[in-house]
Amino acid sequence: MKHIYFTPGPSQLFPEVTGYMKQAIRDDICSISHRSKAFQEIAHTCQNNLRKLLMIPPSFPVFFLSSSLESMERIIQNTVEARSFHLVNGAFAHAWHRAATGLGKDATAHIFEAGTIPDTQNMQVPKGTELICITQNETSNGTSIPLKKIYELKKRYPRIPIVLDVVSSAPYPKIDFKKIDGIFFSVQKGFGIPAGLGVLAVCDTLVQKSIELRKKQKRIESYHDFESLLKKEAVFQTPETPNVLDIYLLSKVTTLMLEKGISVIRKETKQKEKILSSFFSKSTLGELSIKNKEARSQTVIVVNIHENKASHLIDALRKKGLVVGSGYKECKETQIRIANFPQHTVGDMYKLINALKIFEKKIGD
Amino acid sequence: MKHIYFTPGPSQLFPEVTGYMKQAIRDDICSISHRSKAFQEIAHTCQNNLRKLLMIPPSFPVFFLSSSLESMERIIQNTVEARSFHLVNGAFAHAWHRAATGLGKDATAHIFEAGTIPDTQNMQVPKGTELICITQNETSNGTSIPLKKIYELKKRYPRIPIVLDVVSSAPYPKIDFKKIDGIFFSVQKGFGIPAGLGVLAVCDTLVQKSIELRKKQKRIESYHDFESLLKKEAVFQTPETPNVLDIYLLSKVTTLMLEKGISVIRKETKQKEKILSSFFSKSTLGELSIKNKEARSQTVIVVNIHENKASHLIDALRKKGLVVGSGYKECKETQIRIANFPQHTVGDMYKLINALKIFEKKIGD
Repeated sequence: MKHIYFTPGPSQLFPEVTGYMKQAIRDDICSISHRSKAFQEIAHTCQNNLRKLLMIPPSFPVFFLSSSLESMERIIQNTVEARSFHLVNGAFAHAWHRAATGLGKDATAHIFEAGTIPDTQNMQVPKGTELICITQNETSNGTSIPLKKIYELKKRYPRIPIVLDVVSSAPYPKIDFKKIDGIFFSVQKGFGIPAGLGVLAVCDTLVQKSIELRKKQKRIESYHDFESLLKKEAVFQTPETPNVLDIYLLSKVTTLMLEKGISVIRKETKQKEKILSSFFSKSTLGELSIKNKEARSQTVIVVNIHENKASHLIDALRKKGLVVGSGYKECKETQIRIANFPQHTVGDMYKLINALKIFEKKIGD
Repeated sequence: MKHIYFTPGPSQLFPEVTGYMKQAIRDDICSISHRSKAFQEIAHTCQNNLRKLLMIPPSFPVFFLSSSLESMERIIQNTVEARSFHLVNGAFAHAWHRAATGLGKDATAHIFEAGTIPDTQNMQVPKGTELICITQNETSNGTSIPLKKIYELKKRYPRIPIVLDVVSSAPYPKIDFKKIDGIFFSVQKGFGIPAGLGVLAVCDTLVQKSIELRKKQKRIESYHDFESLLKKEAVFQTPETPNVLDIYLLSKVTTLMLEKGISVIRKETKQKEKILSSFFSKSTLGELSIKNKEARSQTVIVVNIHENKASHLIDALRKKGLVVGSGYKECKETQIRIANFPQHTVGDMYKLINALKIFEKKIGD
């Protein structure tokens, strides 16, 4: 039986990916040189598409890295001499904070509860902070920070760059790059292609900061420092032999997304989220974990399952060909996580709801 | 027209890879969780196969990284506090040396000529050297260092770990892991699968060194430090979401290699190299760049093309569906590079020779 993966990443692939892979094989995409014109054209298309789709300005180079954990590390390594500030409400925000402390930085974590909205209006960012790190969409617990709250912080601290982890929300959030200095994401979530590629876009000021730190000998030099990355990005290449297949697949999937239109994708995302949240607002199986709608992720929906029956429910759904994610770590038995990515159709969501209804009925009997 | 890629990497894929990719799609390999049992089984098979194929002992963890440039950086970062020693005779050895200086290490480069064998019998390794870095097979110019010369160095300096770059020679060299402390390679060369995965195997002593440096606060902490990698390697996982597809494909290709037998692969490699070297020993097109047979790579054959006609020859071969590599950087017009990897058959080599003969005749007319 063919399954549908509603897992928060790796997740369902776009159905077109199979065909793209076959085309890649036919066209020798995995054998061409990463220094060839053919590769440069693919990388160029991919970057251009990402720019159009997410409205990334020309002043933001678009770097290809290998994962979002790498992006977290490289951002700190390249742009923070001493002090970073982190909004932390879950495991992935914590990972970014740990990346900073691991690199020896004085990293302040502003801890806030899952499901709540941080009070950016009154938040005190420590003096000397060089970078504000915000996990816009926390994959582990389904909390999302509204962009307007982040912009509020930017308004209060216009000189401190803000970089967003949009790993499990992109391409959904409509980001204003005048108010945000960088974003990163991976491709195995909302872009529906195989894992093994991270994308990082940062403003020119952050690249300049990286150069400044190198000149002051305040950072290491690396094949993946922003200078090395920029040198190659300018000619649509990467310092190392990259995951060429994924860059190719991403160029194809973003073409598909542009054809559909990002506004349609966003509208459908909201529609599908509504289908899910309506169901769980009156289900006997469980309830939405994030009560505050403003703080609830549109792309990773976390549900508290009654009577610790999460794994039971997951197994039952899997038997019907529907794979939902388990709760993160300690929430394995009490929660499920449902991804609502562009590759998931409205029809997929109804299939899931129907299966949930059957299960609900069985429990009720 | 379907091409055969004799490029030194990315290169020809194993013909079976197309089928494996289709199977990966059918079996949802790109959607499964990297924390699932299904993934662990794939990673376990992959590691086991690599151990069997290359005779990697159990005391060497096998890490999955994203590229060989990353491997170079991580090895230095994890095991060198102050001083490394590098045998340098080409661009990739130079890149490793630069990785060390970029990380602020006192890195001594022992420079030797392409095509020569370093005098390991009399070589003076500086006092305090913590790691010897050797590019066993230099992809840029086709020089290979005989393993016995490397073992000589180990005999003279038994306490200094030696790590080998076998990026473009693996799985060909039969390494004695009693005399070598680590190796790394990428998969888009002699393993014939798409780029985007690096493999690094290091002895336990180097992992211990990494722990010691962390305790002394002499290195950064990272999601890809040896401790974090080891913690996950022990349960057949990786710290980040890895290139799952490539790990799957590598498990399949190594199964194929084991079925064929590594001794057969090595025998065929020698046979194919002989076909090439015999041809160029009496061709009017050009001559082998590395004259000393002992220093000549079996897997990357570099040929000096007469009258700067390299790109002319490359174009002519491409029209016949045969893609050979250009010379590296400044040698673009004067050299070609021909990969002789396990995925290249004896028949492929004869096809190449026949095309070269036609070109030779045309030039002669």
